[in-house]
Amino acid sequence: MTDLPIRKDLIGLKPYGAPQLDVAARLNVNENPFPLSPKIVKAMANAVEQVAGKLNRYPDRDAVKLRTELAKFVNADAKTNLTFENIWPANGSNEVMHQIFQLFGGPGKLAVGFAPTYSMYPDYCRDTFTEYKTVNRNEDFTIDQSVIDGALALNPDIILLASPNNPTGTILDDHLVTYLLGKFNGMVIVDEAYAEFRQPEMPTSIPLVNSNRHLIVTRTMSKAFSCAGLRLGYAVANAEVIAALQIVRLPYHLSGVTQAVAIAALEHSEELLGQVELLRQERNKLASWLADEGFIVAPSGANFILFGIFTDRDQVFQGLLDQGVLIRQTGPAGWLRVSIGTPQENELFRKALSSLELTN
Amino acid sequence: MTDLPIRKDLIGLKPYGAPQLDVAARLNVNENPFPLSPKIVKAMANAVEQVAGKLNRYPDRDAVKLRTELAKFVNADAKTNLTFENIWPANGSNEVMHQIFQLFGGPGKLAVGFAPTYSMYPDYCRDTFTEYKTVNRNEDFTIDQSVIDGALALNPDIILLASPNNPTGTILDDHLVTYLLGKFNGMVIVDEAYAEFRQPEMPTSIPLVNSNRHLIVTRTMSKAFSCAGLRLGYAVANAEVIAALQIVRLPYHLSGVTQAVAIAALEHSEELLGQVELLRQERNKLASWLADEGFIVAPSGANFILFGIFTDRDQVFQGLLDQGVLIRQTGPAGWLRVSIGTPQENELFRKALSSLELTN
Repeated sequence: MTDLPIRKDLIGLKPYGAPQLDVAARLNVNENPFPLSPKIVKAMANAVEQVAGKLNRYPDRDAVKLRTELAKFVNADAKTNLTFENIWPANGSNEVMHQIFQLFGGPGKLAVGFAPTYSMYPDYCRDTFTEYKTVNRNEDFTIDQSVIDGALALNPDIILLASPNNPTGTILDDHLVTYLLGKFNGMVIVDEAYAEFRQPEMPTSIPLVNSNRHLIVTRTMSKAFSCAGLRLGYAVANAEVIAALQIVRLPYHLSGVTQAVAIAALEHSEELLGQVELLRQERNKLASWLADEGFIVAPSGANFILFGIFTDRDQVFQGLLDQGVLIRQTGPAGWLRVSIGTPQENELFRKALSSLELTN
Repeated sequence: MTDLPIRKDLIGLKPYGAPQLDVAARLNVNENPFPLSPKIVKAMANAVEQVAGKLNRYPDRDAVKLRTELAKFVNADAKTNLTFENIWPANGSNEVMHQIFQLFGGPGKLAVGFAPTYSMYPDYCRDTFTEYKTVNRNEDFTIDQSVIDGALALNPDIILLASPNNPTGTILDDHLVTYLLGKFNGMVIVDEAYAEFRQPEMPTSIPLVNSNRHLIVTRTMSKAFSCAGLRLGYAVANAEVIAALQIVRLPYHLSGVTQAVAIAALEHSEELLGQVELLRQERNKLASWLADEGFIVAPSGANFILFGIFTDRDQVFQGLLDQGVLIRQTGPAGWLRVSIGTPQENELFRKALSSLELTN
């Protein structure tokens, strides 16, 4: 491959991605374990039947109906009064982030994240020629003003926060976003991919977007909506920011089918989000069990738990996989991340982990 | 918007896109005018019903089944023996091109196209920080060896050919691709978005990909397959090139729904491509009529025709639009582009154009 005239910094790199294996418990990529119900499946098929006759035409480039439905959902969750002009959807949060980095990043620009954090952030930067640096979180994975000040000292153009943070599950104090916005002229991105799994009384940064034009919150339908396979992420921001993002979107980036199926899912928000509460309970139950078993557990507001600390995490990973339980080797050395599955899958995980002879 | 910290070169730019108007004859974006049949609509809805139950899981990141079906179609069209390893699909040719430019372009790299040509090429370059230059086609919009030599003299990293070319409809002589590959160490991209509309005996560059690792041919389901709303484009290339492209794809870029619906469309290739022959006939008929009316007509192998030459093309555009016929102001000064519609739409266009009092 290396004699192809590809970009020098990409030579030898492997495509990003975790294993896609057919095992009894897939707890490695923070998917929602609950399949869509037959009622929602039927609604999606009907939605496609409605639009497919017009697929010879390009889709609504501005996806106004979908954005309107997303705004309704966001308003219910965050107690806001946003409109479609505050929402920008794309094929997964990946594409939303890529567009954000295209608009606000680029050669000569610096983005700063808070390690340990999501492993795609350096890829968004690489793909847009944006420099990426991290400052460390506190030892308990939290962020406080001194950590924020450490990021500001690097003189960044973009600051990337995640709440809940992946892979640690850590929730961000909302006063820190306000603190940061008061001291920073660049763009603040708060990645809320897992926000629906926080305890409902916990904060989201969405109410801040109307009065802060330097803030973008990203959300996704992959997790709480059980729609990872649909690829629908979205940015929530001031209308001026959303208008600017459209400069760098590829025209017609979101298919008519995706728009129709996402709308069908949003029309069943209540049913889908009902499962979120069960996953919260399962998460809290699993966190307690892990702590009782003597593991170190990072407090999580998401649908996954980071736990450890192992002298050989690869051995633990493989020991679980041998019993049909696939989790993820991610986070700081010695830690592992497990996604919250169905009660049955979580029980499989507990049994498999209990069966391992851990040397530490 | 300008006090947002966006990339300086993007300030003030408008999002790319032609008007999406609800008029009697939409002949402006080279859509296929024929809606999908009830049978295909049903097949698509059924395909979504089959996969929607598993949308809680991420889609097949490698889209192997879809790539296998695309390879079958390509093999039938180009008389090749390609496999899924020669095919890479994404959300429209736009995303395919973006990935190609991310991999082979970037700061310090130069791409060269042949003007007049597709108006998105400079945007792909802008979005990936690739420099873009053009060399002029011959006056009749053809390319010959001296034109190719002119491009090579610019010492590019990427050379962009289109066949049929948009907006001129011009078919490329296949010996020119071979000539270019023999003299050039960079990447040659042949954009064949409209290739299915060429006369069947005309060449495609696809048979060259297996023995030429510096060649990528792009295709789309938007036009011949009547699936613009589905957003499915694909690259055809040597397996090593396809493997390298995956370094820069966003993980899970192609939804499970898109994969399923595209496969359903491919299973009805024969029905869909049957309409291509009718569109060819309509194109040839319309080209003859325009010539008979005294217009200059660029010979077209695509589902559109570039014609002129008007002293005030905007006036002609508006005169047609006032009668419900939407075409496109594109191409060199004085020319207009009309997409081939249904026989009824083409008749509307002829009547509307005939009714105008042209001052030239």
